[in-house]
Amino acid sequence: MAIQKIAEKEKEIVIEKKIERSKKDEYAAPADRVIMILFGATGDLANRKIFPALNSMNRQGTIPKKFRVIAIGRRDYTNDIFREKVKNSIEYFSTVKSGKNTDSFLKIVDYLKADFTKEEAYAKLKRKIEEEENESNLLYYLATSPDNFGVIAKMLKKYGLAHDKKNKFWRRVIIEKPFGSDIASAKRLNKMLKHGFPESRIFRIDHYLGKELVQNILVLRFTNIIFEQLWNQKYIDNVQITVAEDAGVGRRGGYYDSAGALRDMVQSHLLQLVSLIAMEPPVSLSGRDISSEKVKVFRSLTPLTSKDVETNIVRGQYSAGVVKGRSVKGYREEEGVRRDSDTETFVAMKLTINNMRWAGVPFYLRTGKRMKDRFANIIIQFKELPCVLFCDVEGGMRPNMLTIRIQPEEGMETTFNLKTPGSGMDIQSVRMNFSHEAEFGPNTPEAYEKLIYNTISGDTTLFTSWKEVEQSWIFIDPIFKVWRKRKPRFPNYAAGTMGPREADMFIRADGREWNFN
Amino acid sequence: MAIQKIAEKEKEIVIEKKIERSKKDEYAAPADRVIMILFGATGDLANRKIFPALNSMNRQGTIPKKFRVIAIGRRDYTNDIFREKVKNSIEYFSTVKSGKNTDSFLKIVDYLKADFTKEEAYAKLKRKIEEEENESNLLYYLATSPDNFGVIAKMLKKYGLAHDKKNKFWRRVIIEKPFGSDIASAKRLNKMLKHGFPESRIFRIDHYLGKELVQNILVLRFTNIIFEQLWNQKYIDNVQITVAEDAGVGRRGGYYDSAGALRDMVQSHLLQLVSLIAMEPPVSLSGRDISSEKVKVFRSLTPLTSKDVETNIVRGQYSAGVVKGRSVKGYREEEGVRRDSDTETFVAMKLTINNMRWAGVPFYLRTGKRMKDRFANIIIQFKELPCVLFCDVEGGMRPNMLTIRIQPEEGMETTFNLKTPGSGMDIQSVRMNFSHEAEFGPNTPEAYEKLIYNTISGDTTLFTSWKEVEQSWIFIDPIFKVWRKRKPRFPNYAAGTMGPREADMFIRADGREWNFN
Repeated sequence: MAIQKIAEKEKEIVIEKKIERSKKDEYAAPADRVIMILFGATGDLANRKIFPALNSMNRQGTIPKKFRVIAIGRRDYTNDIFREKVKNSIEYFSTVKSGKNTDSFLKIVDYLKADFTKEEAYAKLKRKIEEEENESNLLYYLATSPDNFGVIAKMLKKYGLAHDKKNKFWRRVIIEKPFGSDIASAKRLNKMLKHGFPESRIFRIDHYLGKELVQNILVLRFTNIIFEQLWNQKYIDNVQITVAEDAGVGRRGGYYDSAGALRDMVQSHLLQLVSLIAMEPPVSLSGRDISSEKVKVFRSLTPLTSKDVETNIVRGQYSAGVVKGRSVKGYREEEGVRRDSDTETFVAMKLTINNMRWAGVPFYLRTGKRMKDRFANIIIQFKELPCVLFCDVEGGMRPNMLTIRIQPEEGMETTFNLKTPGSGMDIQSVRMNFSHEAEFGPNTPEAYEKLIYNTISGDTTLFTSWKEVEQSWIFIDPIFKVWRKRKPRFPNYAAGTMGPREADMFIRADGREWNFN
Repeated sequence: MAIQKIAEKEKEIVIEKKIERSKKDEYAAPADRVIMILFGATGDLANRKIFPALNSMNRQGTIPKKFRVIAIGRRDYTNDIFREKVKNSIEYFSTVKSGKNTDSFLKIVDYLKADFTKEEAYAKLKRKIEEEENESNLLYYLATSPDNFGVIAKMLKKYGLAHDKKNKFWRRVIIEKPFGSDIASAKRLNKMLKHGFPESRIFRIDHYLGKELVQNILVLRFTNIIFEQLWNQKYIDNVQITVAEDAGVGRRGGYYDSAGALRDMVQSHLLQLVSLIAMEPPVSLSGRDISSEKVKVFRSLTPLTSKDVETNIVRGQYSAGVVKGRSVKGYREEEGVRRDSDTETFVAMKLTINNMRWAGVPFYLRTGKRMKDRFANIIIQFKELPCVLFCDVEGGMRPNMLTIRIQPEEGMETTFNLKTPGSGMDIQSVRMNFSHEAEFGPNTPEAYEKLIYNTISGDTTLFTSWKEVEQSWIFIDPIFKVWRKRKPRFPNYAAGTMGPREADMFIRADGREWNFN
């Protein structure tokens, strides 16, 4: 009883502290006057993701009261033609329901024909902004190649359109990965952006962070005692993260061939997932506090030696094969790809985190294109209990697992042991399942809607800070150095498989298996 | 790495020890020659449970190779007439599938007309046994009133049919609860049985222990690290066990009125569930080792003072009401019940276990007749995490719970917190579910099949030892002493409700609620 009272007292103190903290909370309600200036408005990203997301936000009333979009493109469109094109994109790329009722949205979109690599574009943009609304927050969405970030930032600055601390309206910039192609280029890129915008105004989108089950990792970890208490090296044997795609490089062959899976997926999405799984509880849920814990994870990653790269990292490239019954060509035959390309389309790797919580727990990562299926999940495999009571029985104990399914079907499951029905004491591994869609319905907001919403409300939680980018590159860079020295024997896996044989061998060498194949 | 190697070495040692232990295992294959002598063969239990179970075992080949049933009854049936009656019972009380193909089973059943309260019955029985098979194991099933146990044991002894350690064939006896009506009567009953059979040959059936999910408690606890590591007062806030029936006393009014819910349910089924949830890991899975841990739980129950009985125990009796849309009469109007009966048809109580694992964790038990639904479950409610990060959010954290569903639908679920989909960080309590039937199909063996099978194979795991019976009566007895002093205000709950209001009040007084209503 006494113990309980002390616990309650402590709880009160914690609550008081929390209230105090919330007073200086950096969250804010979404601004009510915002102009989004979209660079690259006729591009793929704008069509597939940004316009459908904005339309859905408009329908749901999650955009600011006064909201306009200035869509910048080089092509010679009228407003009407452009709006018609946007309408088509929305209908094509939205889910059935959210693609309807676009008219009220289209009215807030204006096309601005301009070449944003030229200075005159910015004079024109400035006039256009002044026409639209005298006093507004400005949100620049750079849906362009990173090569243009420098000139855009510089010109916005020159024309008084960049961050200005004397202005009571904010100016923010959204950029998409890739955030550089190594530590040096990432630093250059950042320096260019910094010219016009301080770190707090730069929103780097990693769209994986907008996925429901990814956002759920923190809630899952820090509101459930059954997970929170077991979340460390005493109870966890290993963590497996797989992001498998069945698609090939599609129309992105040119970009992809200069990037590869390590840059395109591991440095960004997969390391972000690692950091969310591994981070210590943050002081608060503010973007800054969460980012600071993620950076600590990256800094605690055991640096990779040349030998580690040889033994703990497997790269692969697909040959022609059959994916879901359909014959597909090999990577080197894809459009935009060099015929002798040594770019990896698959990576499997082991990393370890050298801190008190994770010492000795391997994190196995795996990602690739043209694999046999499209799915992304995180499996927390718990240690086995000592085999004392149910050791000789049929079936035998299997380790407990928690699976967080990120896509395609979002949900969670735990794998645990139960007795097989009947007179004996045989044991069987069974699954307790939670389907996100069955519980909440299918109409959860798309990643991009949440990300744009959060940019407007100034919540940086779901974005990647510069320090995270920097530290993840510092970890990844040595891999390229080793890889460059030795020519890979590519292709080494057939399209439609789970990657090269070596990816199974290297985990088996640790006495483990991929839990999901 | 070094740590892992040590862990593996330890695992090997554990396995070696386990193999050694299994050599002296008390499990045995089912004997291949068995005669079951069924006392009370024309009664309710025989018809509803025993014959359907034996028939199903015959069909599935889980009875011994040479197996006969001698069915003793007073009525003047021929073999053919009796078999016809058994056939009808089986068809009526079995599930559709298992009620078929009774012919091969009926052939092994012989009717013996005899009054087992008279000595001549035993001379007749002895001849019959000798006719059937000279050398056989004998299994006596006493499906009779406990009043007859004494004479049966005595007579079997007199005719050389009871336990005989010089005989290489075993003689075992199965009895059903109630095992007495208080500590004194239980002791008398046991003494009578002991006359003919040592403790190791007495199988006391508590049919709850034959239910799949009850048997699963040990597997669940000791093969799953996620539960095993959290199974103590550091992580568990309280345990709730509910066995609710929507039925009234039916044709058992006469018996029930002299027993009541505390004797009929709490002393047996509910305390058995408490012991399985609370016990320490046993040295082995042998019946003796498990029983020894259960006895330790009973001995650690905090004894009830008079004040405890007043404040921590609520008794109730139902009045007329509506159950599932059907009007039903009150308990005092039931057949066989005294019109001024003060027998309780409902009990809710709190108990605590005074040991290192459970100190401070209340166990709330609740059982009753004519409640609003029929279900039995165990809810392990975990402690709440300190409210630090997700404290101000909508919804708020709810404690994690593990629910073991015993009936009607067997299964398990965990309740945990997830983020509500959308842009905010609101939290919602959701369920991860495991359905036993969905996984294993509906045709799991009935409790009685397993219990009879285990009696034949000599496995005492699912039976109640004398020491368990004794200790549970020692705990329960003081309740009657207090109750007798004060006349209850009965009836105090309407049929079709979850019991008297006091049953909700007394748990609320602890700042808690029933989690399942």
